[in-house]
Order: sequence, then structure tokens, then C-alpha cells
Amino acid sequence: QEIPSTKFGKGIFNIVGKDSSWTMKVGARMQFLTLASWENDHGELTNGEAAFLVRRARLKFDGYALTPKLEYKIELGLSNRDMSGSSIYTSNTPRFILDAVMKWNFYKNFELWFGQAKLPGNRERIVSSGNLQFVDRSILNAGFNIDRDLGIQFRHHFNLTDTFIVREALAISQGEGRNVTTGNIGGFQYTGRLEFLPLGLFPNKGDYIGGSLSRPETPKLAIGITYDFNNNAVKTRSNQGSYMLTENGFYETNITTLFVDAMFKHKGFSFMGEYANRDAEDPIAKETDGTPTGQVVQVGNAVNLQAGYLFKSNWEVAGRFSNVDLSKSITGESLVNEYTLGLSKYIVGHKLKVQTDFTYVDTENINSRLAYRLQFDIHF
Amino acid sequence: QEIPSTKFGKGIFNIVGKDSSWTMKVGARMQFLTLASWENDHGELTNGEAAFLVRRARLKFDGYALTPKLEYKIELGLSNRDMSGSSIYTSNTPRFILDAVMKWNFYKNFELWFGQAKLPGNRERIVSSGNLQFVDRSILNAGFNIDRDLGIQFRHHFNLTDTFIVREALAISQGEGRNVTTGNIGGFQYTGRLEFLPLGLFPNKGDYIGGSLSRPETPKLAIGITYDFNNNAVKTRSNQGSYMLTENGFYETNITTLFVDAMFKHKGFSFMGEYANRDAEDPIAKETDGTPTGQVVQVGNAVNLQAGYLFKSNWEVAGRFSNVDLSKSITGESLVNEYTLGLSKYIVGHKLKVQTDFTYVDTENINSRLAYRLQFDIHF
Amino acid sequence: QEIPSTKFGKGIFNIVGKDSSWTMKVGARMQFLTLASWENDHGELTNGEAAFLVRRARLKFDGYALTPKLEYKIELGLSNRDMSGSSIYTSNTPRFILDAVMKWNFYKNFELWFGQAKLPGNRERIVSSGNLQFVDRSILNAGFNIDRDLGIQFRHHFNLTDTFIVREALAISQGEGRNVTTGNIGGFQYTGRLEFLPLGLFPNKGDYIGGSLSRPETPKLAIGITYDFNNNAVKTRSNQGSYMLTENGFYETNITTLFVDAMFKHKGFSFMGEYANRDAEDPIAKETDGTPTGQVVQVGNAVNLQAGYLFKSNWEVAGRFSNVDLSKSITGESLVNEYTLGLSKYIVGHKLKVQTDFTYVDTENINSRLAYRLQFDIHF
Repeated sequence: QEIPSTKFGKGIFNIVGKDSSWTMKVGARMQFLTLASWENDHGELTNGEAAFLVRRARLKFDGYALTPKLEYKIELGLSNRDMSGSSIYTSNTPRFILDAVMKWNFYKNFELWFGQAKLPGNRERIVSSGNLQFVDRSILNAGFNIDRDLGIQFRHHFNLTDTFIVREALAISQGEGRNVTTGNIGGFQYTGRLEFLPLGLFPNKGDYIGGSLSRPETPKLAIGITYDFNNNAVKTRSNQGSYMLTENGFYETNITTLFVDAMFKHKGFSFMGEYANRDAEDPIAKETDGTPTGQVVQVGNAVNLQAGYLFKSNWEVAGRFSNVDLSKSITGESLVNEYTLGLSKYIVGHKLKVQTDFTYVDTENINSRLAYRLQFDIHF
Repeated sequence: QEIPSTKFGKGIFNIVGKDSSWTMKVGARMQFLTLASWENDHGELTNGEAAFLVRRARLKFDGYALTPKLEYKIELGLSNRDMSGSSIYTSNTPRFILDAVMKWNFYKNFELWFGQAKLPGNRERIVSSGNLQFVDRSILNAGFNIDRDLGIQFRHHFNLTDTFIVREALAISQGEGRNVTTGNIGGFQYTGRLEFLPLGLFPNKGDYIGGSLSRPETPKLAIGITYDFNNNAVKTRSNQGSYMLTENGFYETNITTLFVDAMFKHKGFSFMGEYANRDAEDPIAKETDGTPTGQVVQVGNAVNLQAGYLFKSNWEVAGRFSNVDLSKSITGESLVNEYTLGLSKYIVGHKLKVQTDFTYVDTENINSRLAYRLQFDIHF
Repeated sequence: QEIPSTKFGKGIFNIVGKDSSWTMKVGARMQFLTLASWENDHGELTNGEAAFLVRRARLKFDGYALTPKLEYKIELGLSNRDMSGSSIYTSNTPRFILDAVMKWNFYKNFELWFGQAKLPGNRERIVSSGNLQFVDRSILNAGFNIDRDLGIQFRHHFNLTDTFIVREALAISQGEGRNVTTGNIGGFQYTGRLEFLPLGLFPNKGDYIGGSLSRPETPKLAIGITYDFNNNAVKTRSNQGSYMLTENGFYETNITTLFVDAMFKHKGFSFMGEYANRDAEDPIAKETDGTPTGQVVQVGNAVNLQAGYLFKSNWEVAGRFSNVDLSKSITGESLVNEYTLGLSKYIVGHKLKVQTDFTYVDTENINSRLAYRLQFDIHF
């Protein structure tokens, strides 16, 4: 007894309950990664490292319950990297759940989300890890993204003109990141985001997909601005990074994060750019008597610029420049510039693809590094 | 290719194998919880706390294999709270499996269960966390329940008269709780339970479901008595709580737990009451030389009484009084009284509901507390 | 709305995507184990121990994507024993993924595997834990197997004559075992295996299934030889065991493992034999200054011989002799001989079975032990 299903890449199951009382799409995806890197000691490659990794393995369930106005999404991470970050703040259990969120379209264009979901932060972060243009996200994202959190979000969108679309999002979150079970420490985190799509919607939601796989015939542009205020934040990267512990609790300071990002696509060409800035009221964590604890908020700026061209053959060549410039006087971190050249073969779009990239990492005052990565993606 | 399924709330899949050689129902559920609490410092509310939580996220598989006489049930907990309790006794792995049990109807009304399942303990514990009348269970349950364990259970039932049903259960377990991989420490745990249903079966198994959602036309009553003997128990709450470690092993003492409980329903009205008592041969854990280790068995009594009325509109108002009275001389714990007022809207029964409750916690000699909770439940 | 599926034991779902663009078989299995053991103190049984365990609980997904030439397999372990082995080398997360591997038949009889899979090691290890002749594998396997690892494998097979089949496998792996996220430490691990089937294929792939359930009418024989070279290995049992830590890193030494194994079946009779040998360039782990760290490579030999007869009634009687002879001068371990008598009832082959075995453990210079095990297996 075989069970018929849809085409490859469209979900394992697409279930519709009796009388259309509910739906569920079940998807799964995996990434197999090989990587190698070397230190560049004045032209000589030394300290080579290599690794094989099941980089990501995910299960995704989404659909609606009772009415199309009440949607849900659950995403689970099965690989060891997916689940990492276990601590006393997560009941010493792996961070198995990525998303677990209800989306209620309670009135016209208004949606209320509750549960755990990605915050309306930088574009690169919101693009699914299964839809990236390179093997993985940039160092801007690694250092500045505000990932997922527990709380509520309001979403709204409207048309300024026939083609000019504006989206607004507001989130109120615990402010310590995903899967936290110990309740809210410090104050809440408030995130606002505005998005402008002056030239109309991207085909196939391409404003949040890497590469120009839908090859829009007319130019498409999306611009986004996020302002995030983490009141009495207790972690070094707003709701990410490590907890700033003191002898009798946590060091608390207000942290703000700003993102400005853009996506542009036309035919096979795509461009994505991001700017990030983090600031803190007092970035140096201190004991109650004023002694520094050694922890500091990772304040500074970063830029990420990437562009690619997708050939008719579904081979894509892409380049990326990323720059992270943390405040050296506060964090002690050096300026980093990364230059990446990527090559992708989209066999079935992002659903079955092979991607490879080569990165040159130039860090101030230390030896540069070279990194090579090869990744295979499969999405059911 | 869409896969048709049943109505919302009746399972994601209801599979029947060829020639009815097996069945499987696959279900999933989630609870999204928001909570806030305050200390009542002589009329002033201080030390406010708030949290968002994916409280529970579960997957359930049940059905039969080969013959309807051989049933199985597997339940997995995906949320961080569900999986908590990892320790060296669980191979330092999360407690992912809740139930994993075979139920073999080997002769007439007799069933043999083996694997991990809920013990035949207090009624409130056996009621699924997806079928509760309030946002969560009472402090009686928190302090006295005997949860799940690994071992075997015998189950039997018979009719005393046409309507008077009697059920018996006997369990033999390791006695250290669920997911233990280090074998049995101390002696085994023996649990016996008797249940009396003098007025016939509740519709839709309502004796183990919170609220009177089936609104029985005639009064229905269930009374249960559990006696649990944990031979050479090594944990502070029988098979729950923490291990009573000594310098060269474990402190062992016999612990008994007694539950008397009742459920009554008539039309929209429901009442559930429970009494619990824990005693130990020698509750104070000692080293072999007689020095107390600091750990003590949590001996004492508790009462939980709750009642609710379900309106035609499927709104329910319910009240609860809970009292935990641990032996102060032994445990040092103060008497606690809790008063809870709950309001529930059952949109699709327990399958899609919103529940909220307000609790006043009155603990002897310390400031009282106020707690507010709001929870959304969805069950596929 | 019921979903029809196949017969019991053939998978929960057997999905075929539109235009046969992909397939997926979803299976699940569980093992419930009861065990008891005693020390034999000069004829008196002392120190009795007993335990109940959900020994294994697995989910398996396999099929092909896009073309039958591109197969995948994912196996997840849900029980606490399945997931054990969490460490800083696995991001402090449970080892949830067992297999996650792509198998690409890129040319004729050649296959390229990548991801995490069982290495082509000893036969007993490659036989699925759901298809064993006894309750569990032998002490040879416990001490010498090379389990799973991350990397690539090449597989090939050809016919020497009409019936004489030869299989070759070559694996290149990280060499520290499954689910490692910290990259490759020391050098890579290289595994080569040759298999000879002079009398043709076993029915139903019986060369990797315990017991002679397919009762071949003519004799069937498989012989395998594995040579494994772990370059600069850092664990005490090649890619298994514990890390050999030093004050400033890891002790590295080349470790070789050799396996010779055979499977023979004719009608109801089956025989499986294995020999294992582990050697190391310098088995005694040392600090850089030459001081021994206390860790040593577990060098030595082992033998496992087992045979069984399956009656028409699908009851099987089987016996096993296992011997582990580690180098006493290096490891300090005593010679162990184990004698096991097993009895199995295959109700639906390996898919629904009850197995029990009785083992006499004879360890040089210490009291012998007796162990009894009873296990129930169910596979959907």
C-alpha cells in the first residue's frame, strides 16, 4: 500500500483534514558539510583543519487549525549543532525546538504571533538556512543577529500605492533567546521592523530567498530597517552571546541593535546588503561594587554585501564582502574582513543543491586564514 | 497530491495496516504559556516576574500491532520543560520518552503492561496534561505524585452489578522514576489501585478528563484508592524528588504513599477531590555512621478540591483549593494553601482551548504571592 | 478518514512522490528489556541486580530523491541509551542522529556515500540491532567495533563467477566516532573491507540478519575482512572509547583494527563467527614529557562464535561463545569468556519477537557472573 505524495521538494505530507478543518505540511531537510581551513603564515599554509558534519537536520510542520486565519509553525532541529546551547537556562536540555509559533490573523491585515519564532531582525537571518546563497551566513550575522525568542509579535502590511508595499512588525520578547525555561531575566526586549517593497512583491517570496531563482522580469527591491531595544539585557550580544554573570546575579544594561538591509533582484542577478550596529548604555559588565567582571557587550558595527548571478544552467556565481568592526577599546576584538567566492548548482532549486565557497579571512594583526567549504542540501 | 485526514483534533494520521494487521494514530499537541506573579508585601505587589514558555510539545503514537489485543503507546516530549531531569541516572541525556508501553490483553479482562508508563497513582496525575481543568495541575500533584516508571503493570476490571464497575491495577517498578538507565537502585516499588464507578462509565472516559465537557445526563461518580510501597527507596519523594546520596552510595528507606481521590460529573458540573499522604520508615537520610546527610523524605499530607461549571457556550468557571502540609519538624517546610480561580474557553473541547487562572498562594510565615497564567492549547 | 498502509512490519508509511520523483519509507521500532544478574560467589548467588529498560527506540527514514540512483537514510535514536555519549565533542547535545547518509550510485556498480553511517567494520555490528540472534551483541563487539563515523565511503561489487560475488568498501572518516561537531582531531581513519559470497546472495540480505529466518534451500556463505587504520587516533578504542587527553591536548598514536568474520546459513541452521584484533603504534598514552597519562589503547584480540537452529515453529535455539583477550600487561584487563544460551520466538520474523538469553561470564581471577535477559521487539 503506497501512499502517493507531491513532487520532490514540496513536502513529505500535505494533509488536509476533513471539511478543510485543518492542514499540515510536513517537511524535512538536511545539510552535509565538508570543510577545510588553513592559516596563511606569510604565504605558507599551516595548521590545516578539516571536518565532516551533518550541519543541519530539520523537521518542519506548518499549516492551519480550524480556520486559515489560525496558522501554526513548528520546526525542530535534530543535528547536534542544531540543538547546541544547552544550559541551566534551558533546563539542561538540548534546544530541540526552533520554532513553535501560532499566527492569528485576527483582523484584516493584522496578525498576532505568539510562541517562539525568529524576531524581525536582519534579513540574512530571516532567510531560512535552507535558502542561502552561500554555504552559510556571514560574520555580520554571526556577531549581530537577534535570532529567535519567546513572546508575541504583531504583524501588519498595507499598500502605499498599487505596487508599493509596506510591512510592519513589532515584537515583545523575553530577551534571552530561544528555549529559555527560567523565565525573563532583566527586562523585556522590544523589536520594531519596517519593510518597503516599492516595486511590488518578489515572485515566490524571493525577498527572503538567496539567489535569484525566480528570475523576475522586472527589477524588485526590498528595504528593511530594524530597531531593537533590549531593556536591562543580561547577555553580551543582546539576547544572544553569554550571560553576564555577577557574584550575586546578573549585570544588566540597555542594549540597542540597529539593522538596515536591502535585497534587489532582476532576472538572474541578485544583491543583498546589510548594515548592523550594536550599542549599550554601559557595555562593561560590573559587580555591584563597580569592579569589571570581564564580560563586555559586543558593541560595534558590521557590513555585509553580496551579489550573485544565476546562469540559465542553474549554476550560480556569487561574491561576498563582510566586515565586522567591534569597538576595540571596549571588546579588545580586531577588525575582520572576509572575502568569499561562492559557486552553487541548484539541481532542484534550493531543494537539492550543491554549494561550495572559498573564503579569505583577513583579521587585523594576526595571520590571515583560508577556508574551503562544500555542502550538499536536500529538502523534502 | 493532498492526503485526506480526519477532522481537527482527531489525530494527524489514523493509519490502518493491510488486513487490519496494525493501526497507528499519530497525534501532536502544544501549550503556549504566559505567566506573571507578584509577591504581596502587606498589600503592595513587589518582585514581579513574567515569562513566556512553550510549556509542552508532544508527539503521541498509539494503536495495536498484529492483533487488537496487543496495544502500544509512545509519547515523546519535545519542549525543554518536557525533557528536563537529565542526570547521570539517565545517561546524561534528555528525558525525551514519556510513555513507551505495550499493553497485552492476554486473557479476558486482564491486561499486562510492560515498559514505561504512568503508574496507577493519583487521578489528577493520570488526567493528561492536555485535558486539565486549570492551566496546570495542583501543588498536591507537584509534591506527591508518583508519575511514570519502568516496569510491569497488571490491569483488570469487572462489573459488580450492571452499572457498578470495579477496576484494579498493580504495578511493579524500578522505583526511581522515568527514563532511568542505571538499573534499579534500592528495592522495587509496588503500586496497587482500586477504582469504583458505582453509577456506570463516564461518557468519553470522562473520569480522567478535566471539566464536564460531555455533560452526562445522569450523575457519574468515580472513586479511587492507591497504595504505593517503595521498598528501600532512594529518592526524597518516593520515585520522584532528588536522590538521597551518602558518602558511599545511597540512603535507603521504605516510603509509602496513599492517595484517595474522586471525580463527580453531572451535566455541566464537575468535581474532583484528592487526598495524599506520604510516610517513610525513617525519613531522615543518614550516612552509615548515623550523621544526617541533610536530605529528608518529604513526608506529610495534602488535599486538593476543585469544581467547575461548564456553560452552554463552552465557557467554564472553576475554583480550586489546594493544601500541602508537610511535616514541619522533619522537612522544615511551611504549610501552603492555594486558592485558584480559573476561566476556560473550550473552542474545540480540550483540542483547541484558551485557559486562564489566577492563584493566591498563602504560605505560613512568609509573604503571600499572586500568580496569573494564560495558556493556549492546540492538539492535532 | 483512515489512511491505508502496508502489512505489519513493512513500514509505517511507504510514500511515492509524484512522477516517482522520490520515495520515503518511514519505520519505527522499540525494544523492551528486562534483565537480572548475579555474582557467583563459590556457588552462592550474591549481589543480585535487576532492571527494566526501554533499550532502544528508533525512527528510520529511507528512500531516494529525484532518481533511484540517489538514496538517503536517516535513523534517529530516541531512548536514553540510544542518545548517550553526549560530551563537549558533540556540542553537549545528545547523540540523536544515528545515520544521516546519502548514497549516490554515480557509475555502474560504484556508490559514493557521504554523511554519517556505520563503517564497514565487523559483521555483527553491521547487523541491525533489530535483527540480532540474541538479546544483544557480544563482548567482541562491545570491545572492538568501530561503529559509525562521519565522512565518505566508496562501495563497489562485482561477480567473479555467476554465483561468486565480491564486495569492496573503502571509508575515510574523521576517526572519533559519530555526532562529533568539533572537527577532526588527530588524523583521518581509513577502513577497507572485502566480502566474498562464493555461493551466491543470501535470500532477503540474510548475510546481515541474525538467525536463518529465510531458510535457504542451498548453503550460503559470506566471508568478510576489514582492515582499519586510524592515523594519529586520540581515543582508546580507535574511534570509540574515551579521549586520551594530555595536559595540553591529546595523545595521538596510530591504531589498527582487523576483523575477519563469516556468516553461514542452510535451511534453519545459521553460524556467525568473528575474530578481532586491535594494535597501536604505542598504546600507552603519554604527556609530551613522556609521563604516562593513565589512559591506554585497548589492544588485544577477541573471538565470537555463535550458531542457532530455527525450528518450523519459528522458535530458535542458539548458543554463543565469546572471548576477549586484551593485552594484560598493557591494559591490566583480565581474560573474559562468555557462554550464552538463547531462545527466541519470532512471531513476525524480527518484526515482532520475544528473545531471552542466559549468560555465564567467566573472568580470570574474579567471581563469575550469571545474567538473564528477556526482550520484546516490535518494528513497524
